[in-house]
Amino acid sequence: MWINELYNNTLLGMKVKEVLYKKQSKYQLIEIVDTYDWGRVLMLDGCMMTSDKDEHFYHESITHLVMSQCNNAKNVLVIGGGDGGTLREVAKYSQVQSIDLVEIDEDVINACKEYIPQTGIGYTDPRVNVYAQDAFEFLKLENKQNYYDVIICDGSDPVGFAEVLIQDNFYSLCKQAMTEQGIFITQSGSPLAQPEEHELTKKNLAQSFKHTKTAWSLVPIYPGSYWSFTMASDNVELSDTYKNSETPANCKFWNEKLLPALLLN
Amino acid sequence: MWINELYNNTLLGMKVKEVLYKKQSKYQLIEIVDTYDWGRVLMLDGCMMTSDKDEHFYHESITHLVMSQCNNAKNVLVIGGGDGGTLREVAKYSQVQSIDLVEIDEDVINACKEYIPQTGIGYTDPRVNVYAQDAFEFLKLENKQNYYDVIICDGSDPVGFAEVLIQDNFYSLCKQAMTEQGIFITQSGSPLAQPEEHELTKKNLAQSFKHTKTAWSLVPIYPGSYWSFTMASDNVELSDTYKNSETPANCKFWNEKLLPALLLN
Repeated sequence: MWINELYNNTLLGMKVKEVLYKKQSKYQLIEIVDTYDWGRVLMLDGCMMTSDKDEHFYHESITHLVMSQCNNAKNVLVIGGGDGGTLREVAKYSQVQSIDLVEIDEDVINACKEYIPQTGIGYTDPRVNVYAQDAFEFLKLENKQNYYDVIICDGSDPVGFAEVLIQDNFYSLCKQAMTEQGIFITQSGSPLAQPEEHELTKKNLAQSFKHTKTAWSLVPIYPGSYWSFTMASDNVELSDTYKNSETPANCKFWNEKLLPALLLN
Repeated sequence: MWINELYNNTLLGMKVKEVLYKKQSKYQLIEIVDTYDWGRVLMLDGCMMTSDKDEHFYHESITHLVMSQCNNAKNVLVIGGGDGGTLREVAKYSQVQSIDLVEIDEDVINACKEYIPQTGIGYTDPRVNVYAQDAFEFLKLENKQNYYDVIICDGSDPVGFAEVLIQDNFYSLCKQAMTEQGIFITQSGSPLAQPEEHELTKKNLAQSFKHTKTAWSLVPIYPGSYWSFTMASDNVELSDTYKNSETPANCKFWNEKLLPALLLN
């Protein structure tokens, strides 16, 4: 048995050892399979989201890029990120006092905790608070104004129910929830395989925030493999200067030398 | 119609617009096809070697990594590299006076010149001399001792007729052909998808040369996408100090900040 993802006119297939989990949730089809080459793989609606073998490139990049730009990130919000990998990386900083995770699909959270321990371990940190709800509702109702030092938008590509995650009113809500020195980061697609989504995300962020900065990284199992992340802030100038005095431990990919090399603009 | 490459238990497929060239040469099956997502793609014996859309990652990395370590590379040898992309990158340095290319398969040379102009343009530089012959024979017979400042081994993976390219007697011949300050670089496989080939290449180089240094890069269409290159020299200490005063023009990926970020050991 194989899992196959067709993106435009390119197909990535992986031979499957075993199907570990399969459920149609309220939002999407969730599948976790064990593969021969990539370890355990999470698929949402047939799209490969993360694998044991390559998840560190994505999770270390999205987390440590933004954390490199601040030195005292007390409160961090992760939007999406249901596999737990971003939580695991944020938890590497002792300066962080609380990590809120807002993931719309509770079934994703539970499945990843049970079947992908490599990322699901992120949920075990005592500073983590999980909100299984829509990010818009959370941002409107929780009323954490001027609270988050860092917001990490670790969502699906901006199609379907995730389309709102690159829209102006979403950024407005995030900005209200952020401190004055707050910094936002989102995955911004593949400049190679998704140039239109990539440019649209960057354009929308540049319209909502005073400063933006895009970085490349690699995510082998994503379309194009050449991926991007975009940071945004109103009051922090984003640069290749490493501002955080804490160095995250046990990284498989990230180190401080990557920052100037990955920044694109 | 599709081209598909199965590597271990992972499949990469690309939808084909048009088959431009197909020939069983003396050495291998050569195919050049035009694809919807990746532009023109060269396949040798069913393995994807290069595509218009991603070739710059490979060719800029293998060339500018090694060129960053020297400041006066007069004579450069490219072994393999039949698509011409490495020639195109080496030709960006005005310090280079001659570029010899030794490619075993003349049919690859001619097909790439005609059907992949993006890399084939490398052959048009007047400093390029093409030797369509076996690299061993060339190194033994041409008798260019103590001549090359840089040798770039841009060969296939070390299986089949390319297996000899990671063996001790090959490195011995290269060393004889290199100047005292000469530096060798080779692609050294994917640490992710080919850990055994990768480690074997590094081990063999470390046995033959006093100094070695491995760098990562990405090559989206290769197995694992996370790729590596290893430099080796007897008398030049390889480091993250950029030694070349010339900056190669018109790079799509390479810049000086990449050097410290890509070096692995």
